[in-house]
Amino acid sequence: MHGLMMDSQLSISSILTHAENVHQHAEIVSRKPEGGIFRYTYADAGKRSRQAANMLATLGVKQQDRVATLAWNTHRHFELYFGVSGSGAVLHTVNPRLFPEQIIYILNHAEDEVLFLDIQFIPLIEAVKDKLPLLKHIVLMVDKDSMPESSLDLLCYEELIEAASSDYEWPSFDENLAATLCYTSGTTGNPKGVLYSHRSTVIHALASMTNDALGVSNQSIILPVVPMFHVNAWGVPYAATAAGATLVLPGAGMDGGSLYELIDGENVELLLGVPTVWLGLLQYCEKESLTMTSVQDVVVGGAAAPMSMIKAFQEKHDAFVIHAWGMTELSPLGTVNARNSYMASLSLEERYELQAKQGRPVYGIEIRIVDDNDNELAKDGKAFGRLQVSGPWVASSYYKHEDQSDWTGKWFDTGDVATIDEQGYMNIVDRAKDVIKSGGEWISSIDVENIAVGHENVAECAVIGIAHPKWDERPLLLVIVKEGASMTKEDMTGYLEDKIVKWWMPDDVLFVEELPHTATGKLLKRELRDTYQDYYSK
Amino acid sequence: MHGLMMDSQLSISSILTHAENVHQHAEIVSRKPEGGIFRYTYADAGKRSRQAANMLATLGVKQQDRVATLAWNTHRHFELYFGVSGSGAVLHTVNPRLFPEQIIYILNHAEDEVLFLDIQFIPLIEAVKDKLPLLKHIVLMVDKDSMPESSLDLLCYEELIEAASSDYEWPSFDENLAATLCYTSGTTGNPKGVLYSHRSTVIHALASMTNDALGVSNQSIILPVVPMFHVNAWGVPYAATAAGATLVLPGAGMDGGSLYELIDGENVELLLGVPTVWLGLLQYCEKESLTMTSVQDVVVGGAAAPMSMIKAFQEKHDAFVIHAWGMTELSPLGTVNARNSYMASLSLEERYELQAKQGRPVYGIEIRIVDDNDNELAKDGKAFGRLQVSGPWVASSYYKHEDQSDWTGKWFDTGDVATIDEQGYMNIVDRAKDVIKSGGEWISSIDVENIAVGHENVAECAVIGIAHPKWDERPLLLVIVKEGASMTKEDMTGYLEDKIVKWWMPDDVLFVEELPHTATGKLLKRELRDTYQDYYSK
Repeated sequence: MHGLMMDSQLSISSILTHAENVHQHAEIVSRKPEGGIFRYTYADAGKRSRQAANMLATLGVKQQDRVATLAWNTHRHFELYFGVSGSGAVLHTVNPRLFPEQIIYILNHAEDEVLFLDIQFIPLIEAVKDKLPLLKHIVLMVDKDSMPESSLDLLCYEELIEAASSDYEWPSFDENLAATLCYTSGTTGNPKGVLYSHRSTVIHALASMTNDALGVSNQSIILPVVPMFHVNAWGVPYAATAAGATLVLPGAGMDGGSLYELIDGENVELLLGVPTVWLGLLQYCEKESLTMTSVQDVVVGGAAAPMSMIKAFQEKHDAFVIHAWGMTELSPLGTVNARNSYMASLSLEERYELQAKQGRPVYGIEIRIVDDNDNELAKDGKAFGRLQVSGPWVASSYYKHEDQSDWTGKWFDTGDVATIDEQGYMNIVDRAKDVIKSGGEWISSIDVENIAVGHENVAECAVIGIAHPKWDERPLLLVIVKEGASMTKEDMTGYLEDKIVKWWMPDDVLFVEELPHTATGKLLKRELRDTYQDYYSK
Repeated sequence: MHGLMMDSQLSISSILTHAENVHQHAEIVSRKPEGGIFRYTYADAGKRSRQAANMLATLGVKQQDRVATLAWNTHRHFELYFGVSGSGAVLHTVNPRLFPEQIIYILNHAEDEVLFLDIQFIPLIEAVKDKLPLLKHIVLMVDKDSMPESSLDLLCYEELIEAASSDYEWPSFDENLAATLCYTSGTTGNPKGVLYSHRSTVIHALASMTNDALGVSNQSIILPVVPMFHVNAWGVPYAATAAGATLVLPGAGMDGGSLYELIDGENVELLLGVPTVWLGLLQYCEKESLTMTSVQDVVVGGAAAPMSMIKAFQEKHDAFVIHAWGMTELSPLGTVNARNSYMASLSLEERYELQAKQGRPVYGIEIRIVDDNDNELAKDGKAFGRLQVSGPWVASSYYKHEDQSDWTGKWFDTGDVATIDEQGYMNIVDRAKDVIKSGGEWISSIDVENIAVGHENVAECAVIGIAHPKWDERPLLLVIVKEGASMTKEDMTGYLEDKIVKWWMPDDVLFVEELPHTATGKLLKRELRDTYQDYYSK
């Protein structure tokens, strides 16, 4: 027997309509890629998103067609978030940091016929245009006056918007229809596409708005530095709009100076982004002797926040670091380490230790850790195993991709190794493929790296597991020494000695000039393992 | 093309499982109907809810069977919220304030075979038991030691729970399955059942948790005085559990003294309930010269909060009144007047005026006002028309009931007349059947009543529209004078004179001994209109 409730299908357009009805005066502030700060209200954004929807029709976009963007966090990108998905097409946000071959691959794989482009990315597309046979229209997102010379046949976004009527009724459809598409690069093979639905996006937005997640409200002033080309900027454009928060979009200005200017000028309270960006911002503030007085919370995800960063935000800027963990396959929110009553009972040092963990699952997401035979492991903060997740905003497969090897029944295997403690706090230990299996026990390569990089002479390092005749695998530490500094193997092992358990000590330390990375900056440990595979068996 | 997201069905049991995983130490405090304060954690509640699920199986309850409760807000009722719905049966919460004939009607209409009872309601069921042929088991929710003598064949809840295993796996099923059932009494005909689904309940809970709604978090300490037999206590048991809030349940103690004791003892921050209850609490505090120091917010719904109440909470207890509006047919949240950035810009008097409105729609709910021909009216704060609503937690029909006259396309007609202003704030003007149509214009009977009751000699009053030969209808004011006081028609009209527009002035004022009410305390204006129907045409 079904409940007797309205069959209201969840839709992305309903988020914007809500903002137009009840948050019409709340503002969106945007740094334009062609220069200058732009500001308007959700009412204006609603009108222009409807114009964008009409514009798409004139470009020949039909229901469920994929529409690509190569763009920063701007108000125009925001309009496409709602205009494209709201009209029933699929917004495909392309990461400009991918290698050109990867960009060619995904634009063709998604069969994009229309591409919306920011001015900085013209050279990137000029270079690969010949390999994009399906592409029919390229729309440059600038004012009419800023249209540049280009070998590309470019349409002007503002011209198209101006010509489009704002008279548009968002269509209703099945909430399971595809809404957005985002490719995850990984370290092997071609990028894989995650295809979000209206349902998953709306439920994710609602869960994000709760206080155990981002806790946004119409009183929040939010700066998502996490790019709108990366997992929908962690869903912030949707959550902020539903909540009527002031949304501050940094455009192409991701450097410390540009970010500080925006934070200070707009009284930003909530920041969201990856550690690299915060490192730049903190260094800028340090150098210029500036304090961020308005910032209350900094959500850090994408990679682990170093303890030094958690302390720097707290002690120099009175800002609380909220560690979060997610993946493209999770829309992306999985766990968030939000303020809570348990934390209030801890000393500052204990709280810092807790903040370094990736947090607790948001309601809607289930997590567990398993051993190699899929047996669930204890939630005691000590046992570590493969992290698996399940929930309404978790991917069930990749777009046009047969491989289902990451799924087991209701669970998606994240490829991470983690612990979960009694309070439900999850802590990422390592990537599953990077964890070192030594004598039946596991060693976290990340833990050893994080300690080693604390040595004043170490610029960067990597720990990898190498086949070993007796112990199965043993750790090898590769170190790039800071310019002008020098150190020996004994300096390094001496430093590690009282900081890690004895059997985690790398059997050898090698000093190298460089380490290999992916396009998006991840260490390519696979390549290192290939290079050094016989090192301990020789 | 569907998005490629997990087909995770939303379920009420997932809320409790989440609390067990991440909020296991958060507390539920409950005043037991048989006496004493009980406290335990969400981990304990999870275990006992699973025991309750096993207990239901031993009582012969099968999937989708309706299971009735006649119970206060207690931890045992909480366990049934999850145990009954979580196991796939339908929780039917019965309002003990209904007339005996109505209770007989709904227990038979719902075909309840099992009834869970609080000790105070034994006489009520003893009196009607003969007319409940379907009822197989009556379970009294008390400790073993407190089982009383009764003509009923009573089972003991604690004994059954003790005998049940806590080993239980919550089943998965279609999220559209029925989860709970609540009858709305209205002023005419038999009560009508609203049948909520797992989907509607979970989406409603997520929306309730956002800061534009109740904004609950694991740091909240919540006292829902709104009964768990009334629209699922406004969904608070679900939202509080998902958020890991401390939940304080008042049992049978709804008087000012009992409530104050609980508020003070447990440092309650958030109160939720109807105006009548708050009147009792405020009067008690006044009489005993007590201040509620911990309370931050008071959510008032069910009926309009008088301005004097909004001010008393603010000025005497530093507590902010959040006006909310909903209906049984809306699960119940429709609009909430939560704190927001717009409010911050107002003077205190302006803010009070704004707080007196019923608030803005929660994301997920659409509202509009229409004239008698279903034409949408302007959102200008002046035009008033029938309030219609739509959304995923709005009823689509009544349980086993043919009449669809309250629905038009995607809209449910609330039977209320309201205004909506430019900011999206909705204000209830009147019930549609009570609004007075005079010379082509509408007069709000509620507005006139609210002003008239402000006269120091008025105990209660009612304004009704009476057929009039010239103006179609004209208002008649019926007044109960306070004991020991006396007043004339001229006293009354003189008082109203500068407070309402001239043509709203009642053509006559009658002084009466009593006014008719429904079982749940609503004025029976229909009866008054019948009595006085010829008053102006004679």
